[in-house]
Amino acid sequence: MVNENCYDVTKYSVGNPYEDVGAVINGIITDIKSRQAVSDLNDGGKPGAVIYIPPGDYRLATQVVIDVSYLKIVGSGHGFTSSSIRFNTPANELAHWREVWPGGSRILVDISPEAFDDEAAGAAFYVKRSGNPRLSSVEFADFCIDGLHFIDDGSGQNDAENTYKNGKTGIYVGSANDSFRITGMGLIYLEHGVTVHDADALAIDNNFIAECGNCIELKGMGQASRIANNFVGAGYKGHSIYAENYGGILVSSNNVFPRGSSSIYFSGVVRSSVTGNRFHSFYPGMLVFAANCCENLVSSNHFMRDSEPWAPMQKYDNGLDDLFGLLQIDGSNNSVIANHISESIDTQYIKPNAVKPVIINVVSGSGNYIANNHIVATTEIAQINDAPNSACFSTQVGALLSTTNLKALDVTTVLVQKRSVRNIVLDSGNDEQVEMDKTMNAFRGTPVPGR
Amino acid sequence: MVNENCYDVTKYSVGNPYEDVGAVINGIITDIKSRQAVSDLNDGGKPGAVIYIPPGDYRLATQVVIDVSYLKIVGSGHGFTSSSIRFNTPANELAHWREVWPGGSRILVDISPEAFDDEAAGAAFYVKRSGNPRLSSVEFADFCIDGLHFIDDGSGQNDAENTYKNGKTGIYVGSANDSFRITGMGLIYLEHGVTVHDADALAIDNNFIAECGNCIELKGMGQASRIANNFVGAGYKGHSIYAENYGGILVSSNNVFPRGSSSIYFSGVVRSSVTGNRFHSFYPGMLVFAANCCENLVSSNHFMRDSEPWAPMQKYDNGLDDLFGLLQIDGSNNSVIANHISESIDTQYIKPNAVKPVIINVVSGSGNYIANNHIVATTEIAQINDAPNSACFSTQVGALLSTTNLKALDVTTVLVQKRSVRNIVLDSGNDEQVEMDKTMNAFRGTPVPGR
Amino acid sequence: MVNENCYDVTKYSVGNPYEDVGAVINGIITDIKSRQAVSDLNDGGKPGAVIYIPPGDYRLATQVVIDVSYLKIVGSGHGFTSSSIRFNTPANELAHWREVWPGGSRILVDISPEAFDDEAAGAAFYVKRSGNPRLSSVEFADFCIDGLHFIDDGSGQNDAENTYKNGKTGIYVGSANDSFRITGMGLIYLEHGVTVHDADALAIDNNFIAECGNCIELKGMGQASRIANNFVGAGYKGHSIYAENYGGILVSSNNVFPRGSSSIYFSGVVRSSVTGNRFHSFYPGMLVFAANCCENLVSSNHFMRDSEPWAPMQKYDNGLDDLFGLLQIDGSNNSVIANHISESIDTQYIKPNAVKPVIINVVSGSGNYIANNHIVATTEIAQINDAPNSACFSTQVGALLSTTNLKALDVTTVLVQKRSVRNIVLDSGNDEQVEMDKTMNAFRGTPVPGR
Repeated sequence: MVNENCYDVTKYSVGNPYEDVGAVINGIITDIKSRQAVSDLNDGGKPGAVIYIPPGDYRLATQVVIDVSYLKIVGSGHGFTSSSIRFNTPANELAHWREVWPGGSRILVDISPEAFDDEAAGAAFYVKRSGNPRLSSVEFADFCIDGLHFIDDGSGQNDAENTYKNGKTGIYVGSANDSFRITGMGLIYLEHGVTVHDADALAIDNNFIAECGNCIELKGMGQASRIANNFVGAGYKGHSIYAENYGGILVSSNNVFPRGSSSIYFSGVVRSSVTGNRFHSFYPGMLVFAANCCENLVSSNHFMRDSEPWAPMQKYDNGLDDLFGLLQIDGSNNSVIANHISESIDTQYIKPNAVKPVIINVVSGSGNYIANNHIVATTEIAQINDAPNSACFSTQVGALLSTTNLKALDVTTVLVQKRSVRNIVLDSGNDEQVEMDKTMNAFRGTPVPGR
Repeated sequence: MVNENCYDVTKYSVGNPYEDVGAVINGIITDIKSRQAVSDLNDGGKPGAVIYIPPGDYRLATQVVIDVSYLKIVGSGHGFTSSSIRFNTPANELAHWREVWPGGSRILVDISPEAFDDEAAGAAFYVKRSGNPRLSSVEFADFCIDGLHFIDDGSGQNDAENTYKNGKTGIYVGSANDSFRITGMGLIYLEHGVTVHDADALAIDNNFIAECGNCIELKGMGQASRIANNFVGAGYKGHSIYAENYGGILVSSNNVFPRGSSSIYFSGVVRSSVTGNRFHSFYPGMLVFAANCCENLVSSNHFMRDSEPWAPMQKYDNGLDDLFGLLQIDGSNNSVIANHISESIDTQYIKPNAVKPVIINVVSGSGNYIANNHIVATTEIAQINDAPNSACFSTQVGALLSTTNLKALDVTTVLVQKRSVRNIVLDSGNDEQVEMDKTMNAFRGTPVPGR
Repeated sequence: MVNENCYDVTKYSVGNPYEDVGAVINGIITDIKSRQAVSDLNDGGKPGAVIYIPPGDYRLATQVVIDVSYLKIVGSGHGFTSSSIRFNTPANELAHWREVWPGGSRILVDISPEAFDDEAAGAAFYVKRSGNPRLSSVEFADFCIDGLHFIDDGSGQNDAENTYKNGKTGIYVGSANDSFRITGMGLIYLEHGVTVHDADALAIDNNFIAECGNCIELKGMGQASRIANNFVGAGYKGHSIYAENYGGILVSSNNVFPRGSSSIYFSGVVRSSVTGNRFHSFYPGMLVFAANCCENLVSSNHFMRDSEPWAPMQKYDNGLDDLFGLLQIDGSNNSVIANHISESIDTQYIKPNAVKPVIINVVSGSGNYIANNHIVATTEIAQINDAPNSACFSTQVGALLSTTNLKALDVTTVLVQKRSVRNIVLDSGNDEQVEMDKTMNAFRGTPVPGR
């Protein structure tokens, strides 16, 4: 006999998990609450439970509502595959494909939110509880949440599967929470992957969250959380990693690939770290610190920006031009130290035409410390791309590997706007590459070979 | 039929896991040893076993003694919640709480060590074996060890639940060991969380070890271990991460929050790394290298120190004053590079009164290399805090986010004591902020804006 | 009844897993393919499966061939122990050992490849599929693959168990793949641990891959992958981490211990990161960038090189001399920032005799940025080592901890070869320690104490 706190969605007595796993899980949660009804029973009484999702395809028609602590939902496979490649492959090729959908322990999100403006309504998993204490230790691990399709966004592009819009969210946490873990998941084709409000000591680790409109969003306010070791890549409209009004976040060792309007977008975030990540993007604004972000550390990251090499996506971008800054900083007392930043673009793609692109743009604030960043700017020769749409992988890798025959591109490595003062810029570009009021800020230029 | 090497504590034939899971697990270990008795049987013979702890509350009255290799003990929930908030919440509020105890796969440690001076006696899990080889590959994963209560420490404070004393240890490894893993655990309200002697290639990853007197302690001597991606926060008397006489430790990507007498305390540790961590503390001495720590690297970390904002804990601290150094280094040839260090304290809390706080204090040794650290020191206006005790989260986050209206605080960014020579200090403070014998050491000051 | 997509090798109806777990797993894969035969069935149809390997000793006589996506193979124990210590321990000592083999969920690789030159033929797990799409989301987790013995290599050393040759590979991925995960594994005594061709978004995390000829090899071409939080240590002939023609790899927070001909060997790798690792080696060539590696970041790493302290291995090395460079860089626009590098060797071991060892050797390319590296070079007094062979641990730790009585060793901290120009070297050695054409490159020496 299986332990009463261990559930398997395929064996629970009520509901059909293949038709609506949401109803099954809600039934299980009701069962947990009825069995664990006393808040203090013999020094315990509410240990929660684990719900197992074996490998399989499970439709979710009913939103799961989690209002108990210590619930762990776990599968045996993150099941990611690229739906973006699949949906941009011609039907005649696709007919020969051996599989076309994600897999593993896979939730097929069938929720149709009536209005797109209520993100919570479109969530597959909605976590919220009022009263005290905050929910603690809810865990999601090792399964797949698949939004299935994007839908037409009314833009007239007639390109529904590339809109990154469908009103669906994978996991939405709507109230204050403590010590949650989201690990090993695969999230795909959702307008929002994971949205968490008011987190304390949240861990989002080792997930694969890609081909979502937005991937990870920390909202409200919160502290002391970690986003580490994830593969992340949002659509061209959204953010790969977003946070607002948080302190003490650690964003570490993530591999954030295109597209993503921004790889990292912080708004009012303070005293946080972005260290040891690898970022790759096709647009300016890879990292944005907005709304007075202060005392953050950006170090040991690798930033790489080049141009979209894959035909189906070349018509899209995030709308920012090359004067915006590959990194834009609004705020004070931040540290940007020991990063490598590569920008490699064909000059024909520079916007506005023929401007000198800005790499680090300090738009306001004071006391920022920008030191020992190595900025490599080159022009690549855009290749005529007549590869089939399905050849995304070889197209991308080929573009990434082409570092021969590059020529130096003239850029502003650091621009400090006039209203920003008392910043310190060291060894992050030579005298001609760094543009700022050198009487109001401190500067030491990178020595120039041969001078 | 379940495989004979897979055990479930709720299904083992002997003992009652809810009354004494320790006796059950010891019975299982005896069974493993009787079944796996031959050291070399057909190129194997002692594969060990896995013991599963389903979600639930399990009292542990008998210490578990592990003397076999390849034993994995695994649960389905780390179950952390803040007992510190709960025990500092008035009973009338608490009456409305939906749960008050940690959960998940939870061990309630009922061991009462007779004398507090024998840490091993108070351990819930005691791992030790004599002879050869060392124990290998013992693994603890994804369960909760809860010490339940702290007890009065005789200090007269009449504040038992905030003493961080109870003589209990979560996991105590007492003999040389190899390739152990402690991952995904939740440890809480223990005087010592994890104590490991003589480790080789130990991994302590992705755990939540907080509200313990001390969290992680590496003792004896050892090498090549990793403490990564943990949430850690000790009590005001103990260390969050402690190591002595180890070489080649990697402390990486941890989020170490208050309190903790020290976030990191190394004694005689060499050739080790502290990189990419986020540290937050309320006291000086956040990072201490004592007893001649040599050739270590401290880089890409974010250090943040402010004052205790939460009323119930404001009467406690670690006893160190602001001349001790936020980081104190005793040793040679260490590297402190590319860190961000924020200190924000109301001047009324500076000890001794009105001194200039020291951030990095090199107290002995030579050849240390301190470069490209950005030190941001500000005075915050301490807020009158009349929030209820349970409002720990909003109090803490509010304090952390308040970066507006800060004024610069005059600090010694680097102090090199007279007996320490041949150190190199670069771009870590200007000429007035760095105090040392500049004829006996090397110095390049951070350029000053406007000069 | 167990879910049909959940298999246990000890309960599958066909084959004997103890005699040939390979045949059993192949039978399971055949079953999966027959049950999941339709590529698009109700928006799904091929979710894959999980195969569980309980703790135990399982011989593998038949190679496992994986040609389905979303297959997860998982055990309950990585089971690593040092076979190297065991095979270098005298029989009379060994007779008293409590266990002599690795354990956990352990695969004993009995495959005997007829020719050593076909690595795929000697693989325990061979993953390959032709056609589209690429295989996705195959996962290996938490089990042990043990090659059992090395064999005589014809060198006349009569030291078979220390050759690191046996023609066996743990996991060999032979075709393009996406979103694979290899986590928590223990790999030992294999000539090749993990070899993956043409990976996209591959995660190799939290494994213990040691005492293998080579540990991790990324071949062909690929992108956006992560090698993080592993314990790795190859034999003296092979590489701990090798990659060729990849872009966007993140090698992060690994603890890479000896021996390993190289800790990291990159060939034609671009736009990748090596950050926050701890490397320990006994030979020059710890990190090699060969064949025009460009735009990579090496930061916040701790490099430690000393001499082999353990008697049984002192006769072996990687054949490189001290002019090769502890780090050798062939390529352009790389960044080497904020690393700590320790070299501590008895002068009698310097090769060629009495030369000045080179730490960072830039052999070709241009535009490399080498800044803020702290290089500590000392002579250690080699100790007469009469410890028994089994005392590997105490010998190693003792050597690592001995930082007292070290004397400064004169080294070339950075050497830029004549054909390499326009490099920038900052604060990584003083004027006498950095050897390059200072008219063709840019240089700022580390200030010298007392000058």
